[in-house]
This record gives sequence, C-alpha cells and structure tokens, in this order.
Amino acid sequence: MQSVSERTTLKRNARRAVYDPQEIAGILAAGRLCHVAYVEDGEPRQIPTLYICDGEHLYLHGNRQAALLRHLEEGGEVSVAVTLVDGIVVARSGFHCSMNYRSVVLFGRGEAVTGDEHRRILDLFVDALIPGHAAAVREPTSQELAATAVVRIPLAEAAAKVRGGDPIDDAADLDSDVWAGVIPLQETAGAPQPSADLKATIALPDYVADFKTGG
Amino acid sequence: MQSVSERTTLKRNARRAVYDPQEIAGILAAGRLCHVAYVEDGEPRQIPTLYICDGEHLYLHGNRQAALLRHLEEGGEVSVAVTLVDGIVVARSGFHCSMNYRSVVLFGRGEAVTGDEHRRILDLFVDALIPGHAAAVREPTSQELAATAVVRIPLAEAAAKVRGGDPIDDAADLDSDVWAGVIPLQETAGAPQPSADLKATIALPDYVADFKTGG
Repeated sequence: MQSVSERTTLKRNARRAVYDPQEIAGILAAGRLCHVAYVEDGEPRQIPTLYICDGEHLYLHGNRQAALLRHLEEGGEVSVAVTLVDGIVVARSGFHCSMNYRSVVLFGRGEAVTGDEHRRILDLFVDALIPGHAAAVREPTSQELAATAVVRIPLAEAAAKVRGGDPIDDAADLDSDVWAGVIPLQETAGAPQPSADLKATIALPDYVADFKTGG
Repeated sequence: MQSVSERTTLKRNARRAVYDPQEIAGILAAGRLCHVAYVEDGEPRQIPTLYICDGEHLYLHGNRQAALLRHLEEGGEVSVAVTLVDGIVVARSGFHCSMNYRSVVLFGRGEAVTGDEHRRILDLFVDALIPGHAAAVREPTSQELAATAVVRIPLAEAAAKVRGGDPIDDAADLDSDVWAGVIPLQETAGAPQPSADLKATIALPDYVADFKTGG
C-alpha cells in the first residue's frame, strides 16, 4: 500500500522512521485529531480537525463552504499530521531530553466522497467520537447532509516516526547523579457531564459510561 | 500586540474566534507541542515539534541541519498550530457532535536566535519539558550548542478558536431521549519510570515526583 517517496523519507533521526503500513494504520487508529496543511496563494495554511481512517484512506469532514474542504473537494494537495504524545524523556543532559511519541505524516490529494458512502462515513465520524452514539441519534436531515462535505486522502504516501523507551544518554554521562527516565503521558477521560438542558429522566447510557480514550 | 489580518480572520464558526493577546498567550502557555507548516517546492510540508512561548514570540529548536530549521533560519514563512483537546461533545444529533478545544494558529517568518539568548532559550526548553531539570543537568557542550538551532516567530499575526461547554442542539431535538453532554478529556502523567541504566543510589527528585501536565 504505502511506498517510500522522496518527501516521506525521514532525514533526521532516520532510525525512528517507520514505513510499515500496519504500524502506520495502528497509529492512525489510535488518534482522532490531525493537522492538515495546504498551500494558498503560496502561503502555508493549517487546520486542526477530526479524522477517521479505514486502512486505505484517511477521511475528513466539515462545512462544505470551508476553505480547506473546498480545496480538498477540488483535488488539492495536503499534508496531514497525526501526533500522539506518550511521555517526557528525562535525560542526564538537556541535549538528550525529548518526548516519546508516535507520529504519522502523509501527503496526498483530496477525493470527494458522495452518495451512500458520504452518509456512511458521517455515521463513522459520530461513532469514532463516541462509540455507540451513531445508533442512538436521529437520522441526519437533508440540509445537514448537504452542508457537510466528506473527502478522503489515500494513505499511499505516508511515513511514521516513533520514539519510545528510555533516554539515550552519552556514555560519559552515565555516571552522573542526575535522575533519568520517562514520565508517561496519556489522555484520560473524566466523568461524563450531562448537558444543562438534558431531561432529568434520561439516564447515562452504558456506551457513554464505558467510554475509553484510545490515544 | 496581535493584529487581525485577512488570514487570521476566522470565517467558519466566527463566534468561536478569539483575538485577545492574553487569551492567546494563555493557550500557548498550556501546550508544548505544535505543528509547523511550510511550503517547499510549492508543496505543503508539516512537522510536529516542541515549542516555548514568552508572550511576544514562539520559539522552536532542533537540529541545525533539519529542513524546517534551515527554512526558519533563512526567514522562511510558516504557519504554527497549537491544539488542546478538552472534551467530546455528545449532542442529540450526529450533526452537532463535536469537540471542546482551544486552538491557536499563527503566521510569521523565522528569526534566528543566537549568542547568550540561544543558550538561555535552550535552558527554557528543558524546563518547559520538566520544570526544575535545567538546574540539575550538566552544562551543554560547545558541540551540542552548535548542533542545535533556535528560531523564533513573532506572535503578531495570531488567532485562537475556542469551543467550550455543552452541546448546542437544534430546538426541535431538545425533547429527544438521547443523552447529551460532555466527556472531559485531559492529559495526565503516570508514575515516573527510572531509566534501566540509572544508578541505584539516585532517588527520584521532588521536581520529577511533583511533575504536573499543564494541558
């Protein structure tokens, strides 16, 4: 599926490069937020937005009038980055302090998603946010469907960069008295907060109570 | 400090736009990871990286040979995005499901940071990752200082977009039996893990034990 291109070949810290499609898909499956960069009038633009991924394509959605969605529906080129932060690397020197992370950058052109597939992907976006919720909500109206564009970008040109594990200190620093290790970081979910206007008769459904973050 | 330009004027969901410099600085102070977009050969490129911010400039650092650092040292233009995720907005319709977030996008050109200021900012990067650690580690070597570039970007052209609070459902859906509310999300730190090669005599210092995430 993926192929290594000039622009997905990592030049810095090449030992952290990952080109394996399954590992790339695993990182994309664990995230939900991406940053999409594109060029407008020769200038770099960038938008944070939700995504979903099925192993072959990354899907974005949004207001059909938004500049990014128009750019993608017209086949415009983007770079998409997904970055999951796993920990702070505390080294014996400032130079080797770092983060543990899993990141993917992909390059590609937008393809408009229409018809039944458009509707199916919008349901998947709801379930990607809150698994089980798509079956609970009412049907989308024709106005809602018309207002929301769905586009996809092939995963054909993607690369990951991963750092995990202990600090890698200089040999000369290993006898230092400075503490070294990793502080793990993760996203956690708090107790669900009912909306102020929620009817008092509505109990918390299991699928919300059981919500787990994947990142 | 900030001024509203054509490209920082939010067109979508303009009610969520924030141009107040203090609020923008507050969001930047709470994050540590940014995505930097730039244009190379007419194509969008993007790199996730750490940043620090002093209220006037956003600072980046990295290997002096890296394409992004070279671009910035030469005064190249970038867009920088910082996105903090605060929760999942569970609405009564799929259309109104969303995220709570605080995000900043800024545009600007790189300025090389040199001399004493270069060294001072590198220490601030260490303390931004692990407050208190810069005073614990050895001095950087001249090779380390030479290998690491520091650049800054003025905050002059920045805008924030913030969503908080309950879902905003259509009036016709308020009588629905679907649960609605917010699932809060936050970054949390786990117990510090000593490096496998840490000398057994080194105790966990208070500044690592007391580590708190800001996001």
